[in-house]
Amino acid sequence: MKFSDVAMSLKASEIRELLKLTTMPEIISFAGGLPAPAKLPIEDMEKVDVEILRKEGRQAVQYGTTEGYNPLREKIAKRMKSAFGVDCTAEDLIVTAGSQQGLSMLAQIFLNKDDIVLVESPTYLGAINAFKLVFPTIHEVPTDDKGIIPEALEKILAENDRVRMMYVIPEFQNPTGVTWPLERRKAVMDIMNKHEIPVIEDNPYSRLRYDGERVPTLKSMDTKGNVIFLGSFSKIFMPGFRIGWMVANPEIIDKVVKLKQAVDLQTSSFGQRQASFYMDMFDLDKHVETIRKLYGERRTLMCDCMKKYFPEGVTFTYPEGGLFTWVTLPEGIDAKELMPKVLEQNVAYVPGGPFYPNGGHANHFRLNYSNMPPERIEEGIKRLGEVLKRELGK
Amino acid sequence: MKFSDVAMSLKASEIRELLKLTTMPEIISFAGGLPAPAKLPIEDMEKVDVEILRKEGRQAVQYGTTEGYNPLREKIAKRMKSAFGVDCTAEDLIVTAGSQQGLSMLAQIFLNKDDIVLVESPTYLGAINAFKLVFPTIHEVPTDDKGIIPEALEKILAENDRVRMMYVIPEFQNPTGVTWPLERRKAVMDIMNKHEIPVIEDNPYSRLRYDGERVPTLKSMDTKGNVIFLGSFSKIFMPGFRIGWMVANPEIIDKVVKLKQAVDLQTSSFGQRQASFYMDMFDLDKHVETIRKLYGERRTLMCDCMKKYFPEGVTFTYPEGGLFTWVTLPEGIDAKELMPKVLEQNVAYVPGGPFYPNGGHANHFRLNYSNMPPERIEEGIKRLGEVLKRELGK
Repeated sequence: MKFSDVAMSLKASEIRELLKLTTMPEIISFAGGLPAPAKLPIEDMEKVDVEILRKEGRQAVQYGTTEGYNPLREKIAKRMKSAFGVDCTAEDLIVTAGSQQGLSMLAQIFLNKDDIVLVESPTYLGAINAFKLVFPTIHEVPTDDKGIIPEALEKILAENDRVRMMYVIPEFQNPTGVTWPLERRKAVMDIMNKHEIPVIEDNPYSRLRYDGERVPTLKSMDTKGNVIFLGSFSKIFMPGFRIGWMVANPEIIDKVVKLKQAVDLQTSSFGQRQASFYMDMFDLDKHVETIRKLYGERRTLMCDCMKKYFPEGVTFTYPEGGLFTWVTLPEGIDAKELMPKVLEQNVAYVPGGPFYPNGGHANHFRLNYSNMPPERIEEGIKRLGEVLKRELGK
Repeated sequence: MKFSDVAMSLKASEIRELLKLTTMPEIISFAGGLPAPAKLPIEDMEKVDVEILRKEGRQAVQYGTTEGYNPLREKIAKRMKSAFGVDCTAEDLIVTAGSQQGLSMLAQIFLNKDDIVLVESPTYLGAINAFKLVFPTIHEVPTDDKGIIPEALEKILAENDRVRMMYVIPEFQNPTGVTWPLERRKAVMDIMNKHEIPVIEDNPYSRLRYDGERVPTLKSMDTKGNVIFLGSFSKIFMPGFRIGWMVANPEIIDKVVKLKQAVDLQTSSFGQRQASFYMDMFDLDKHVETIRKLYGERRTLMCDCMKKYFPEGVTFTYPEGGLFTWVTLPEGIDAKELMPKVLEQNVAYVPGGPFYPNGGHANHFRLNYSNMPPERIEEGIKRLGEVLKRELGK
């Protein structure tokens, strides 16, 4: 039996493998990016599900269009304005099976083998895995604590004529937690608009801001139709429904719709209605406000604990929002090799190396603070600190 | 903005475009492959949804594993034995976003550009679209009213060394309604086992048999682990949940799981539980029995009406099960060109040409009989017959 080049290149995502571990109750898991279970509004969902079936009846479980359930698309279009400052209509967007499907479809739409896709360094592991399926060259653009460095980007574009798209998470980045300030966004968009290269703006977290001022999305500054915005209900509502969306110019949406027809026909008719009816019957923004407060407290607690328990020489980011902080160990210490010792203490993180598509940078790991209650955050960071102290001989 | 070769090759699926038409209530639609809405057990679903939320709570809406929800996988494994004669365990299968996702992932797993995939001639349009994304050579194997002709298959394999997989629907084929008898299945499997080439057995309809004896599945005759079985709840339960599954040898399942991680992470946690809890709380086979009876009556009625209203020179298949019958017009009459005249009468079918990946054969169309009530079947076939009579000058 012969497999394709794609099949031979597949490696398991370390995040997904780690998620399996996190189902063991004794593990204090800072891996994964799971919302806090206690805050998922499942009591409301009973009412929502019954209402869907009574009001829509069989339409709710029948086949639907590839573009998505129209009332949901209309609500998302309105939300694009109120939450993200973007003017668009239902026709400018398609509902996807989470943002992950958006990423894999965009790679198929824009990249031939060996074409270049630019990413932040480091970047979201799931995006790397999705892009790799089409065998592109993944070019890491140097970043600092304000995101992509414009001069570095300009230089890469001057030296490479096969750049076909750029993928970024300008708000509370995964894995670093970094947010691009306005000037940086403008500078990068000026460059990308000049070169007319599509920019994928992945925006799953921006409603979860704990400090500082809201910064305009790249899509809201898009004058040439080059920005493709990926949104998701996974971090602000229910991850298990697998409902995301993509906003882009009509030419791109048209191609994505046709691709999705071949890929999975459509996203769940019922799942789309669960998001749509919930927004009709309850106040999504109020729910977001609840989890925003909770996650903000956990972010602060985790950073305070790291300050308290981590040895000197270990640094970490203090994110203004989102779900992750990024820890840097002294050069030469490999977070993946350290993993068994950490797991021995029933603590889990995601080693940082895989977030760099071209390797290296083993001295980082990613911590999630949204999923664990305060006492487990403190206990977990304490245990982690002890492992690190032993490792650093402190 | 530059698109990829994949993007430039995309065409909209005619079936999906037609499904849009069928939402207009005045259309008597024999297009699509929708289950009868009146029989979808949505009253039961209210109980199911409430029970899911009360029993599983937040797990039901949280992220889950890529392989799928274990209790569902276990139930499907049991069902593989009782309904399809296949011995397997939960580990031998993955839950997919409908069979369509199984098809697109298998193309990615087995086919490089220009590799050969064998299909029945004609074959399922959605499979053609999924396969085309990886730019294979789609080779149509000649078929008769018993399925693929073994001698033709043998000859193709002798002459081509780049055949990497075969895709077939041996039971109530889409679009023709043809079922392969046992001897034919054995002959084809003997050939494929000798060549050790993967066989995708797409089996969405086999529980919907109206006449004749059950025939063993290809997977039940698989001694070498070459058969990949695709199952689906779409035709026997709820299409809008988008829940299907794939049974294959562990090496293949491992690769598909890794691919799915990159493609969409996982199928809806809640959707999978809807299928699983329904099977616990209600009798799926009893539901299947209800729709089997209903569709069987509609099959008979549609064929009787075609006999009564279609002019001489127009032939059609009399399927033993499934959802479709296949109509053949005299050579030279193009079913696609006829479409506007048919739509003018508020009737819809799917023109047959697109079911042939390499073109030609425009003198066919596919009719679905599961979705329309009896009086509309009779009225629609009558109107269709009138158009055909005018066209044939009879």
